[in-house]
Amino acid sequence: MPKVTVTVTLKPTLLDAQGRTVETALHSMGFGEASGVRIGKIIEMQIADGMPTAEAEARTAAMCEKLLANPVTESYRIEVEA
Amino acid sequence: MPKVTVTVTLKPTLLDAQGRTVETALHSMGFGEASGVRIGKIIEMQIADGMPTAEAEARTAAMCEKLLANPVTESYRIEVEA
Repeated sequence: MPKVTVTVTLKPTLLDAQGRTVETALHSMGFGEASGVRIGKIIEMQIADGMPTAEAEARTAAMCEKLLANPVTESYRIEVEA
Repeated sequence: MPKVTVTVTLKPTLLDAQGRTVETALHSMGFGEASGVRIGKIIEMQIADGMPTAEAEARTAAMCEKLLANPVTESYRIEVEA
């Protein structure tokens, strides 16, 4: 079955409060070398056999627009492995 | 600055309740071709200049063990781009 990986990240211009919190925690734990921490989601799934790669990509993009990402604040990247 | 990407995923043997919920939602929205949906985290950060790649990897692994991942239930993958 083709495997699809979707990476959803907050748009770069938006403040990532979760990332900022993690960065502060890392610094207080002695990991001062970390900066610009940003946190996103990764969604892995299988797509039914027999669907061409282009169609799998288009269907996954529709999933992202409707459910997996918030297109207003997040951007997403789709990778399809046949 | 070297860029580090950490991907944290639930161990394959564990039930991913969030992924199961998303899969059910996708099916009810007409995306019946999706199966085996699993959701993880992706953490991107910059590491201070001048740290060798091997050290950046080792330091990031320590961050994962102590904060970024739960080593009991999650596995993580580290990629360092110089």
